[in-house]
Amino acid sequence: MKARPNHKPQVLIIGCGFGGLEAVRALSKAPVNITLIDRTNHHLFQPLLYQVATAGLSAPAISAPIRHILRKEMRRGNLTVLQAEVTAIDAADKSALLDDGEVVDYDHLIVAAGATHSYFGHDDWAPHAHGLKTLADAFAIRARVIGAYERAERCADPIERSTWMSFVVVGAGPTGVEMAGTLSEIAQHTLSKEFRHINSKHARVVLLEGSDRVLGSFVPELQQRAREQLKRLRVDVRTGCKVLAINDMGVSYGSREGDVELVHHVPTHTVIWAAGVAGSPLGRTLAASAEATLDRAGRLVVGPDLSLPGHPEIAVIGDLAAAQSHGPGAPKPVPGVSPAAKQMGRLAAANLLRRLKGEAPLAFRYRDYGNLATIGRRAAVVDLSVPVFGALRFSGFFAWLFWLFAHIYFLIGFRNRLVVMIDWAWSYFSFERHARVVAEPAWPEAQPTQPPLMDNPDTQPLA
Amino acid sequence: MKARPNHKPQVLIIGCGFGGLEAVRALSKAPVNITLIDRTNHHLFQPLLYQVATAGLSAPAISAPIRHILRKEMRRGNLTVLQAEVTAIDAADKSALLDDGEVVDYDHLIVAAGATHSYFGHDDWAPHAHGLKTLADAFAIRARVIGAYERAERCADPIERSTWMSFVVVGAGPTGVEMAGTLSEIAQHTLSKEFRHINSKHARVVLLEGSDRVLGSFVPELQQRAREQLKRLRVDVRTGCKVLAINDMGVSYGSREGDVELVHHVPTHTVIWAAGVAGSPLGRTLAASAEATLDRAGRLVVGPDLSLPGHPEIAVIGDLAAAQSHGPGAPKPVPGVSPAAKQMGRLAAANLLRRLKGEAPLAFRYRDYGNLATIGRRAAVVDLSVPVFGALRFSGFFAWLFWLFAHIYFLIGFRNRLVVMIDWAWSYFSFERHARVVAEPAWPEAQPTQPPLMDNPDTQPLA
Repeated sequence: MKARPNHKPQVLIIGCGFGGLEAVRALSKAPVNITLIDRTNHHLFQPLLYQVATAGLSAPAISAPIRHILRKEMRRGNLTVLQAEVTAIDAADKSALLDDGEVVDYDHLIVAAGATHSYFGHDDWAPHAHGLKTLADAFAIRARVIGAYERAERCADPIERSTWMSFVVVGAGPTGVEMAGTLSEIAQHTLSKEFRHINSKHARVVLLEGSDRVLGSFVPELQQRAREQLKRLRVDVRTGCKVLAINDMGVSYGSREGDVELVHHVPTHTVIWAAGVAGSPLGRTLAASAEATLDRAGRLVVGPDLSLPGHPEIAVIGDLAAAQSHGPGAPKPVPGVSPAAKQMGRLAAANLLRRLKGEAPLAFRYRDYGNLATIGRRAAVVDLSVPVFGALRFSGFFAWLFWLFAHIYFLIGFRNRLVVMIDWAWSYFSFERHARVVAEPAWPEAQPTQPPLMDNPDTQPLA
Repeated sequence: MKARPNHKPQVLIIGCGFGGLEAVRALSKAPVNITLIDRTNHHLFQPLLYQVATAGLSAPAISAPIRHILRKEMRRGNLTVLQAEVTAIDAADKSALLDDGEVVDYDHLIVAAGATHSYFGHDDWAPHAHGLKTLADAFAIRARVIGAYERAERCADPIERSTWMSFVVVGAGPTGVEMAGTLSEIAQHTLSKEFRHINSKHARVVLLEGSDRVLGSFVPELQQRAREQLKRLRVDVRTGCKVLAINDMGVSYGSREGDVELVHHVPTHTVIWAAGVAGSPLGRTLAASAEATLDRAGRLVVGPDLSLPGHPEIAVIGDLAAAQSHGPGAPKPVPGVSPAAKQMGRLAAANLLRRLKGEAPLAFRYRDYGNLATIGRRAAVVDLSVPVFGALRFSGFFAWLFWLFAHIYFLIGFRNRLVVMIDWAWSYFSFERHARVVAEPAWPEAQPTQPPLMDNPDTQPLA
């Protein structure tokens, strides 16, 4: 796509997550031509993606076509939306290469390409431990969870049956905690009377975490509450456990008791990976081209104004940026959460406009309004920073209500809000999860045919 | 699964479409043990599947987990539901073989395995002309239709662009007419203001039909109405056209003008196959094992009581059965529609119970209450047989309203009815199609890279 005949600066925005969308909106009335590129045709409300994976919501309820969200901005005439994958960025040439060979030139670039799962160098775990970043991931997890109970129902062998009825979630951050809580709810309530040969209440949900804490980003008081709520939901929480291997037989992990290192094994065919994230692979091509630095998580290290050092025309925002918040006191790292991505999107747009006017850019300051996580039915933890008032912390039923309304409020589009409210009200009273429908086979190719090598969660000393 | 300790007769029902579901319900209070096997975990309301394919409805709105629909029947204790694929039936041994090698014995068998697409021996057309039978099919069509506009938006070449903006539907039965009408609506309304480089109103929707008629199963008066309504929606209807080839360049078809045979070509990358259906492949294994006859469409020829000749213990119902209706007058073939499948399900169950009591089975009589088809916004045709009153035929807005309420009435589950009503009301007033979200790439592998060989729908004499 060549530069357009008018002489407005060309702004290229890569990615339409929370950060990219904010940046587009902030620039849509400015005297610039914007090209927005996303791999998919939709903006995804990622905080509720685990509900699509656990059959509580349908995919269209938490996503919306980018063209539809931005239809007003597009009518102003300075925004072009393309569904394409950017495969490389040439910082010297100021251009991006698309999957079909097309080259898009830019004067200003905002990279909001997000993150992907990271298996900490164990890419062989990937086929057995599904991550949750896209709608396709959510469908795959849904198919596996629902399929596991169907398999268990057909099993004559009790060991194999209990393997199908074991679920392991790796990582006890908000996503892992939400997944584990919901998986347990499905077992205890949704499916409890729908099988003849198995009792879904006997399913086992294990939440594994490497550190000693559940919800590490919350204050210790709420961490403790979360642990209690998980216990009430019958989630088997195991902290201080390091995953050693994941294959189609299950998960092996190590723990420490005093001086002894122990190795455990949970036989399961259903592992959900909520542990590591890494910057999008696009970060690597940009780092090479712009001589920028990647941190250990594959994120691009940006300056205070969110631009790449030496490239004031390139801003990196959202989960792909290793950014610092420059408030009062020493700079603090910015967490990978959606409010931070939105705030970065707005600042990157503002700095771009300042540069066009010859003004100095502003430093990024992350305003943290708090942290929410839900655990299951009527269980959540809320940690708010209310201006002037200070910290407001609560858990349990009211935290859960607060979580519900906050998520409905931040959803995009009136229709989605309405649909999600109806779906939640329905599920709450009926214990039903309406999206329990699987279109594709969960295991398209080979099935595990043998029972796992170890048949119960034996504990044995290491060497 | 071995026979259970009690000595109730074992009934095996294969398939949980309209026919299988009716049969299960009719037998659930009888002194029999029922095993219901379906390949998927859901019952699908197929008459609205085209709306999932065209992004008007989400998948969970028109489908429901089989276990959930039948939870009350399962609690009675004589119903087992298995998600599995039956790969063969051994009529002599009275058993069915499942995909995982398991053998299920039966005393009575009801086969309701349905139909699949048939390309009339041209299986090479399949990758280029997607049929519509399952949710996975609907998602694939949705991805291709929405993806085609995205491709068009990115095209610099005007010929290639118009190829992406051409859509061909093969077959002008109810499904083909509904698809073509909706594709045109998407072009004229839904997408009309959401692109910058293309005008979606310039998209071309071609409906190809081999016979001379649109909606051949309706009376000529309503066929004419349907044609007019399609024309108003700007669908290019071409009857008397025989498809000669379908590949990634488009569709070639032949027509006749007087003595001259003409060959035409429509360059397109998006072809939807709504032409031929054939009995499920399971019919073939059953025919071989039970020495039954398959008709040309791969359906099993059944006796008046829906059983296979020589096998009173095997009934075949729904789209897999070549059945006759034994009303007053000569027997008439039963059409492949959902009311017929339901009625067959009920009769097969009744005959099974009669046989248990030593009574003679009844002959099947299809009660035809009429035919409905929608064409697009405010356009439909209705042809009812009202008892006593006689025929009631109408078209246009009221036919469309009738169609809407009839479909909501027959949907399973209060929740689905509510959701579909909200979705339809929303779409009607907003012209939006809320499920325009694509999770997977439309063309996972190779993309067509060259423009089609012919660049406009040229017409040239044959030989």
